[in-house]
Amino acid sequence: MDNNQLEAYLKEKRLKINQKLEQILPIEEEPKIVHQAMRYSVFAGGKRIRPILAIIAYEISGGKGDAILMPACGLELIHTYSLIHDDLPCMDDDDYRRGRPTNHKIYGEAIAVLTGDALTALAFECFLGSSEAHDFSERAILRFVRRLTRAIGTKGLVGGQVMDIIQLSKDRKKESLEKTCQYKTGALIEASLECGALLAGADPRLLSALKHYGKGIGLAFQITDDILNVTGDKEVMGKSVHSDREHEKITFPELMGVEKSKKEALRCIEDAKVSLNDMGHRAWPLREIANYIVERKS
Amino acid sequence: MDNNQLEAYLKEKRLKINQKLEQILPIEEEPKIVHQAMRYSVFAGGKRIRPILAIIAYEISGGKGDAILMPACGLELIHTYSLIHDDLPCMDDDDYRRGRPTNHKIYGEAIAVLTGDALTALAFECFLGSSEAHDFSERAILRFVRRLTRAIGTKGLVGGQVMDIIQLSKDRKKESLEKTCQYKTGALIEASLECGALLAGADPRLLSALKHYGKGIGLAFQITDDILNVTGDKEVMGKSVHSDREHEKITFPELMGVEKSKKEALRCIEDAKVSLNDMGHRAWPLREIANYIVERKS
Repeated sequence: MDNNQLEAYLKEKRLKINQKLEQILPIEEEPKIVHQAMRYSVFAGGKRIRPILAIIAYEISGGKGDAILMPACGLELIHTYSLIHDDLPCMDDDDYRRGRPTNHKIYGEAIAVLTGDALTALAFECFLGSSEAHDFSERAILRFVRRLTRAIGTKGLVGGQVMDIIQLSKDRKKESLEKTCQYKTGALIEASLECGALLAGADPRLLSALKHYGKGIGLAFQITDDILNVTGDKEVMGKSVHSDREHEKITFPELMGVEKSKKEALRCIEDAKVSLNDMGHRAWPLREIANYIVERKS
Repeated sequence: MDNNQLEAYLKEKRLKINQKLEQILPIEEEPKIVHQAMRYSVFAGGKRIRPILAIIAYEISGGKGDAILMPACGLELIHTYSLIHDDLPCMDDDDYRRGRPTNHKIYGEAIAVLTGDALTALAFECFLGSSEAHDFSERAILRFVRRLTRAIGTKGLVGGQVMDIIQLSKDRKKESLEKTCQYKTGALIEASLECGALLAGADPRLLSALKHYGKGIGLAFQITDDILNVTGDKEVMGKSVHSDREHEKITFPELMGVEKSKKEALRCIEDAKVSLNDMGHRAWPLREIANYIVERKS
């Protein structure tokens, strides 16, 4: 397995996801400004990690066809909404994201808040599917959307951002920091894998293994993000570096240094990969993605 | 039918809704600040119109018992989230709501944005119910949540606030203003009635009549809100008056004067009440609520 093979695999998935997102996001409809702002941030060159993980989990669990694309795209909309709100002046106050001005720098704060709100609503439309036809059973959709909803509330995405802002981790304990990361980044990544598995009707053992994998790579992902904020190149990253230090945020590199943080991230992905042992060759993209998460430069 | 009878009826419903909201909203769990902020705005003395309408529509459609309370409370959480975001400095910049400082005045803008986001997630948890036991069929829940989701996106709640902010109605046409009101206020009120009816398995004719009623009172509600912003007493209202004029908003009283606006609101509720004709006595609370909407002082 080499990097080119993974790159080709991810590229193919990304293409399908982007085509579906093109269909999902309105263009010319009123009120145009918010639809333009939604598209501006969704098509800013994201890596589409969450929908890709959902699709892989779906396929590993025996799911067939493209029906997974719609709910998977919903995961990307949720991720994009959280970035737009996190970048707001009242939060992390970031001017750049993926090499372009952040949403509020272009559309103003009011529209940026509403764009996030609108993406959440549209995400749920993607999760729930149309009422006329849906490829999944009503039971599977409900299990999936319930799981997802828990992951984005105060015990997940929103809770993590709250803890990040109020620096619940200011007690400088590794456990508190891990919990913040788990809520802020891990919950949605874990849920993406679980959701793909749930929609394919995975058995509890496979579901649990994918969940464990998601937990590991989620933490590794956030640790690597924090490391890149210290060591990364602004040009390659397309966003501000050293902003965590400026905001006096407690992060892994701040708490234990860059080298130890790298080791911690590696430990997380090794742990994640162990949970793939029973899945054999079909889990190769998940193994490669785990490696990619800690090796990436942006 | 007198006002006391309606008041007693609404009070009883409100009590049940508030008890359920008490159960739904976490108190002591981490991160505490966001849970406190959620409670601050949810328990600020709202009239609970939307959940009450859902419950009435449910009962009129033959629904029994208290199972409707949980999804009905979700409607109030959505309404509260929209108020918190609308009050933000970057939007309507309101310092008071229901006689108390607005959420961001107490908790800061970052937490206010996240409180809104958290309420949305919690609302969907209420809509979807727990995975273990639910009183409604999976089909009914999905129809209900799909309907609701459309009502809060860019063709509903969020779209209306966008149009309000960018003043899509600056062409000063009554039709544009009506569309803004329909999105901003009407969509969620209409959806509340439809949702109650859908969960009770109402037939298409009843569903359509309740929808029509919702459309009428939704518009009347927003026109009356705008009139009160011109003629209301700040003490009674518990929020700023004359703010629409300060923000140079196009509203019904601004467009056609207070008297003509009152007539327009009355016309809307008369139209709404006509759609109740086939429902007989059981629709009495809806008739009285329609009257109350245009007669209220706050």
